[in-house]
Amino acid sequence: MFFPETSGIYTLHTKGAIIVSIQETENAFFEHMKKLSSFEQAMGLLHWDARTHAPKKGSKARSEALGYLATEHFKLKTSSETKAYTDALLADHQQETLSPVTVAAAKTLQKEYERAVNIPEDEFKEYSVLTAESESIWEEAKDNNDFEMFQPYLEKIVSFNRRFADYWGYENHPYNALLEDYEPGMTVDKLDHLFGQLREGLVPLVESVTSSSNQPDTSFLFHSFPKEKQRAFSLDILQQMTYDFEAGRLDETVHPFALGLNPNDVRVTTRYDENDFRTAIFGTIHEGGHALYEQNISSHLHGTVLSDGASMGIHESQSLFYENFVGRSLPFWEKNYDLLKSYAKGQFDDVSLETFYHAINEAKPSLIRIEADELTYSLHIILRYELEKSLITGDLAVKDLPYAWKEKVEAYLGITPPDNSQGVLQDVHWPSGAFGYFPSYALGYIYAAQLKQAMLRDVPAFDKLCQNGDLAPIRTWLRDNVHQYGRMKNPEDILKDATGESINPTYLLTYLQTKYTNLYKA
Amino acid sequence: MFFPETSGIYTLHTKGAIIVSIQETENAFFEHMKKLSSFEQAMGLLHWDARTHAPKKGSKARSEALGYLATEHFKLKTSSETKAYTDALLADHQQETLSPVTVAAAKTLQKEYERAVNIPEDEFKEYSVLTAESESIWEEAKDNNDFEMFQPYLEKIVSFNRRFADYWGYENHPYNALLEDYEPGMTVDKLDHLFGQLREGLVPLVESVTSSSNQPDTSFLFHSFPKEKQRAFSLDILQQMTYDFEAGRLDETVHPFALGLNPNDVRVTTRYDENDFRTAIFGTIHEGGHALYEQNISSHLHGTVLSDGASMGIHESQSLFYENFVGRSLPFWEKNYDLLKSYAKGQFDDVSLETFYHAINEAKPSLIRIEADELTYSLHIILRYELEKSLITGDLAVKDLPYAWKEKVEAYLGITPPDNSQGVLQDVHWPSGAFGYFPSYALGYIYAAQLKQAMLRDVPAFDKLCQNGDLAPIRTWLRDNVHQYGRMKNPEDILKDATGESINPTYLLTYLQTKYTNLYKA
Repeated sequence: MFFPETSGIYTLHTKGAIIVSIQETENAFFEHMKKLSSFEQAMGLLHWDARTHAPKKGSKARSEALGYLATEHFKLKTSSETKAYTDALLADHQQETLSPVTVAAAKTLQKEYERAVNIPEDEFKEYSVLTAESESIWEEAKDNNDFEMFQPYLEKIVSFNRRFADYWGYENHPYNALLEDYEPGMTVDKLDHLFGQLREGLVPLVESVTSSSNQPDTSFLFHSFPKEKQRAFSLDILQQMTYDFEAGRLDETVHPFALGLNPNDVRVTTRYDENDFRTAIFGTIHEGGHALYEQNISSHLHGTVLSDGASMGIHESQSLFYENFVGRSLPFWEKNYDLLKSYAKGQFDDVSLETFYHAINEAKPSLIRIEADELTYSLHIILRYELEKSLITGDLAVKDLPYAWKEKVEAYLGITPPDNSQGVLQDVHWPSGAFGYFPSYALGYIYAAQLKQAMLRDVPAFDKLCQNGDLAPIRTWLRDNVHQYGRMKNPEDILKDATGESINPTYLLTYLQTKYTNLYKA
Repeated sequence: MFFPETSGIYTLHTKGAIIVSIQETENAFFEHMKKLSSFEQAMGLLHWDARTHAPKKGSKARSEALGYLATEHFKLKTSSETKAYTDALLADHQQETLSPVTVAAAKTLQKEYERAVNIPEDEFKEYSVLTAESESIWEEAKDNNDFEMFQPYLEKIVSFNRRFADYWGYENHPYNALLEDYEPGMTVDKLDHLFGQLREGLVPLVESVTSSSNQPDTSFLFHSFPKEKQRAFSLDILQQMTYDFEAGRLDETVHPFALGLNPNDVRVTTRYDENDFRTAIFGTIHEGGHALYEQNISSHLHGTVLSDGASMGIHESQSLFYENFVGRSLPFWEKNYDLLKSYAKGQFDDVSLETFYHAINEAKPSLIRIEADELTYSLHIILRYELEKSLITGDLAVKDLPYAWKEKVEAYLGITPPDNSQGVLQDVHWPSGAFGYFPSYALGYIYAAQLKQAMLRDVPAFDKLCQNGDLAPIRTWLRDNVHQYGRMKNPEDILKDATGESINPTYLLTYLQTKYTNLYKA
């Protein structure tokens, strides 16, 4: 492991009349972070339980408990102790005497503290009530295809987010202030450039795939595949991925997720559709990628605020790496197609590996983001990014959003949403106030492709390893270059140190062009 | 439901310069209790998870989280808010304007507050460290049959408990102060009388059963019975008991327990022994009885400190009621023997109901309390009670405990423990400092028998209902007479109101005499 232990050289500083050594402050700071992580573990478990095992009648009392713990956690994070510890540890003359972990943790917590206390308490409370209400109104609006019902809520949420950006401060663009929560260091300038390049490469590629005469046969995908057999296969694949079952487990849920209670307890959930095995298998591999990240965070960071993913985008890069570059690759299925057949009830018996491979990589424009394939997915993200940026600047009014949405779907995907439920109302992100979140998903694709390219330099036998089901060297490379650092490094440094360059979308574009031109060539 | 709503008549009282209505205080008090119960839910779930689903590597971080939450919960319970609210609400002129729930909750919390703050903080901390250490030393001592290793720890624990009794205060006997934690209102005088009567009735009955020539054939009990089938049968029986699966679930564990996160989420766990189906079945029925209690606490008490069992003894009476008076009765098996056969792999095919019934009610003196049958169980408790009472008064020195233990086992059960591991070292209660706990188990038997007798007045068709698998009227009677009250009433009032008399062990003695004389008659 790369982290130097704490240096052992300590200076003294006075705190009122009491002389406290910096070592005492450092120890107290780590205790303070353990308290925060204790609340997070309890809240995490209440969430996991609610989504996997909890009996339904208990939900009201459980929500109250969760709400109370969240309030206490927030109070502790924004307490005077947080300020005192981080100020003391980050004083100019101190930092070189402290371990890098302490300094990075103090900086991270100080930033979270400042962002939280910069929002006036009244506004924060009002916003919490608004988003809770907005989520429930949105569900109804979505069910009834009624955008007007949701519109006033979204208008308020947008104006809150504009004010938050002002409170937090930003350079050049208010949206930059919002991005900081999800992808520290990312800016509108960079995103415009990245996403512009991606969009220009993807739109013609999607058109050519759509108009290709070589469309895959997918009918055999939808046969009955019993849940327990899907689970058994999912477990085999997680094992192959080197997921540590002594530090995790696989459960069933409605909306799959991975959740790290602590790095030694990182749980994966998946959903089983008995008429479409892809939901569970690719869901498990995707969430397994997230879980491997958290299981492999350096033990030096456990219990600190750094024991988490570096950003939403980097986290997503790990899930997408496994889902697409491993799980949707031909070498992976050269290894695992027979295993899949052994669990299935004969549905693949007359299907060649090549036909199967094309079917599971079918790409076609579709309306719903979470059902999109790897080729078209980023276009769903780019259009949301462009729209939410315009909402924040005020260039686009909320009332005009449905029309703007429709225009962009037609331009980028060549299809038209028949209604708002399958359009602008489809995602929970805006009703819940998560402006700045969407770009992470596409960044994850870009990062994943770039990491794959860099990995090939050190692990040239990548395909061979997948063919052999020997995924340990792949995980080791990701652990050494990404996982272990947790939040010690920012996303940009992780990428630069691992790949030798800044974010570059050409690797993703080249990968997609090669893969899909090949798959769909007539 | 029997609880009057809050009266709506409020007076004002001054608090410094601010005038606070008693209604405001009452509301704030209920909010305060919700905070306490939020911590309890989170801790409960962490416990449940640790014992059912949690991956093993996560245990260290989880224990730290649990320890932190327990500390915060204790701080909140012993906070100045607790004192302020309970003092204000229990002021003489206030009580008649408040709802009975408020008054009872304030009294209960005030008592817990006072007991906690009466122990000097330093001693409490020292005791917590001691018992944690003692539990781990005890495990080793038990494994190595080494009482001397454990002796100094137990000596310290005993002397702490003596001091605690002094801090808490008591009339007549220091052990009364310890009993109060587990069975409010119970005293040594009463227990000496009750347990004396019980012992005198049981010892000769055990002797006559042991020497009877009509011993049951039990060989067929130990055939292979697959876990999933045992689980299916257990689920059927819980359903029959009217356990609400929308407010609970059944999971597997090593040491079975029932746990109420809140009254709408009360979980049962059981253990499956594939070579002895009785472990799971009777374990499930027993824990199911505990769970029915908590599922049926009045909704008026939810989220308050009253939303729990009235005492350990009353709680145990509910589990034992179902385990013995329902689950080990002939009418119950008249209904369920065929069902059991349908899940088993033929092991009962040549076994008559009568033979089966005798086998599952086999009674014989044994060394280990938790494996004892319903006839001999109370004797295990009585001897522990007598010993721990003498330890607390100092009449018995810890070093003489193994000898005193052996003497009593021989006198009451007619057998001799071959070593201390199967004797004085068998239970976790003393290493963990739970002096005053053991009597609850025997009290549960006495209460259960007395409740059964009273129930027959209102539900004379008890046997018929069991034969029909219609257990709802039985649950309804227990709900109306016991469950709904939670901690609103003390154990003695529950018993008096339900049965018309104070605790009386003759019902248990008569039941056991009738049942076992009948079963073992030559």
